[in-house]
Amino acid sequence: MARGAGSAARPDEIRRHNLSLVLAQIHRDGALTRAELTQRLAVSRSTVGSLVGDLTQLGLLQEVVPTGGGGVGRPSHVVVPHRGGPFAVAVDIDVDHMTVAAVGLGGDILAREVLRTGKEPTTPALVAQRIVDAIPLLSRAGCPDARPGGIGVSVPGTVDRRTGRVGVAPNLGWKDAPLGDLLAEIAPRGVPVTVGNDADLAVLAEHQRGSARGCDDVVYLMLRIGVGAGIIIGGTPLLGHDGHAGEIGHNVLDPSGALCHCGKRGCTETYIGGGAMLTLAGRPLPLTEAAVAEVFGDARDGDVRALTAVREVAGQLGRAIAGLLNTLNPQRVLVGGWLSEILEVARAELEAAVVEYALEAPTRTVQLVAPALGKDSALLGAAELAFAEILADPLVAADR
Amino acid sequence: MARGAGSAARPDEIRRHNLSLVLAQIHRDGALTRAELTQRLAVSRSTVGSLVGDLTQLGLLQEVVPTGGGGVGRPSHVVVPHRGGPFAVAVDIDVDHMTVAAVGLGGDILAREVLRTGKEPTTPALVAQRIVDAIPLLSRAGCPDARPGGIGVSVPGTVDRRTGRVGVAPNLGWKDAPLGDLLAEIAPRGVPVTVGNDADLAVLAEHQRGSARGCDDVVYLMLRIGVGAGIIIGGTPLLGHDGHAGEIGHNVLDPSGALCHCGKRGCTETYIGGGAMLTLAGRPLPLTEAAVAEVFGDARDGDVRALTAVREVAGQLGRAIAGLLNTLNPQRVLVGGWLSEILEVARAELEAAVVEYALEAPTRTVQLVAPALGKDSALLGAAELAFAEILADPLVAADR
Repeated sequence: MARGAGSAARPDEIRRHNLSLVLAQIHRDGALTRAELTQRLAVSRSTVGSLVGDLTQLGLLQEVVPTGGGGVGRPSHVVVPHRGGPFAVAVDIDVDHMTVAAVGLGGDILAREVLRTGKEPTTPALVAQRIVDAIPLLSRAGCPDARPGGIGVSVPGTVDRRTGRVGVAPNLGWKDAPLGDLLAEIAPRGVPVTVGNDADLAVLAEHQRGSARGCDDVVYLMLRIGVGAGIIIGGTPLLGHDGHAGEIGHNVLDPSGALCHCGKRGCTETYIGGGAMLTLAGRPLPLTEAAVAEVFGDARDGDVRALTAVREVAGQLGRAIAGLLNTLNPQRVLVGGWLSEILEVARAELEAAVVEYALEAPTRTVQLVAPALGKDSALLGAAELAFAEILADPLVAADR
Repeated sequence: MARGAGSAARPDEIRRHNLSLVLAQIHRDGALTRAELTQRLAVSRSTVGSLVGDLTQLGLLQEVVPTGGGGVGRPSHVVVPHRGGPFAVAVDIDVDHMTVAAVGLGGDILAREVLRTGKEPTTPALVAQRIVDAIPLLSRAGCPDARPGGIGVSVPGTVDRRTGRVGVAPNLGWKDAPLGDLLAEIAPRGVPVTVGNDADLAVLAEHQRGSARGCDDVVYLMLRIGVGAGIIIGGTPLLGHDGHAGEIGHNVLDPSGALCHCGKRGCTETYIGGGAMLTLAGRPLPLTEAAVAEVFGDARDGDVRALTAVREVAGQLGRAIAGLLNTLNPQRVLVGGWLSEILEVARAELEAAVVEYALEAPTRTVQLVAPALGKDSALLGAAELAFAEILADPLVAADR
């Protein structure tokens, strides 16, 4: 609980805080006994009982007897998310498609719809409408007795998280787009809307339940058409003063490099974005996730030009990562997005470039890993955003 | 007070926490009335009275009647740092000299010694000895009745703050130097020793009592021979997993640039370090702070070559800052070290490069400013480090 300097906590504040703690534990770890909760929270057994009781009444948790298992004696009840509890409407907007999912407390994807947006103009208003239209479908498919507890949207662009306004999403052609407001206007009443940057949300989800669990200094590199970084330092998301941190795609790696669509030369995106991979592999446009996946497939199959392209991009990615190691000294770097296979196909080239370009100290300890949540990092991060209000204060759920 | 998930605070913990809060307020703001403390801490007047009483007995604070002022009625007592209280031994190691100072609670420099180290080899053992030798001199000169409460040392290199070990300080010729241990062995008994990176300490001091006060997302660029960044994000120092964050000096700005002493080409340090300035201005070595100051002086006086050099470095500095804006989105960037005058002499060139190379969003809100503490930022940051233990738990001061 964030506390002002020296202010005392009131009893109802403490209760809300403790309800939040219990719900957060179950949300992150899925299933815990009362005894485990008692130990983790370092409070009395009766306090835990009462907190679990309240959260059950709020329709957020339930107690079940696990099936299977070969233990001796009476099986312990475990506390789990309530199946009929609120679900997050999680949305991941990519350039040629968007994924809309119902995600339960605990992070399970209960239903998902993939909506192609390739040929039509993807305006913010259209996107907002399609999200809202998808909600009843998701509900019927995955959680018929539940209601949406929040909408969280991942956007490949800069986002002011306070207003849900997209500053610039170059590869969607959006500039200063009030996505949050458009969505809030047509969303079911009382359902809060939050919007975040894709890399920021991906690192959030991986930190909560993926490859960065238990790791408090982590960078997630989102490599799609554009390039962004989601950063958590000291366990806290690094969003920057206006929420624009991590926009490394247009940092210049070489001022005499190729022309970027932004007008500068040698931007990071021109070296390690999906476009760089296709160009180096001599593949035709359009630039899609499938086309990039094909290059990786061919590289694995021994296609020399594809393999050379992957290795070249891996070397440049190593240079970009080196800059982040020097600047941020993270414990772990996750390589995600369309290019996450690069760690499997060309780890040697990537690591050689990191060693060449980064200082020895941050290189010694860093781990380069793939995101455990695979393509769903940003989607599940959007769900975290959607659940944030309920997790911070479970009593608000009662008012919906 | 950092608190584990759900753990309850014990009464003595709360008391220590509150003592720490009162001391921190006075340390930062210098002089406050009991009424002001009561309001800030949102506790009762009698609690504040008792906390101030304890801190007075510990020899950390005192109450005085301010002289002057034209108010009506009985003048209020104000609480200030105790003049005979513990002082910090603050040390700033630069390449050709080191500054050793006695700094009181509240941040006043009570005495200082500047020790030249130019001609002799500056080994860690020698530096440690000179620091310890200086303590009685400082004490006599500035605070004869006081005792050292801690030693804090600023080093232009990477530091493991847990061990006080210097990983690499290239411009001192140090590698894996156990400065903290060497110093602890010969320091007065019971006086804790801490070592930090110069830019990290500079940003700490500027955040506490300089140009970054009240600003929670800030980067301090330390431009001496080498280049480093001290970063505070969300009010918390960004040190990275091993304490090596902010080492941007060897991030490559141009892979076809000049050869750096590290073996790579086009490192940031070769563009915006003191050496770049002297080379561009056509000045002879050795590379000293005075020589760089002379270039600035000549540039102000209209020397074309000096002015051109300053402008060229300003443009490159703008590029380096642009990368930091994209990555970290700070509210304020402080330009410090030997090159801090660059903001006065060539702000236009610097800002033009920032606008050219950074994204619009983080550029719109950022402020580029000079450090209010001038050349003393790192020194005063070292004092913050030295006081950290007493500030976190004033009762430890009683045991000294």
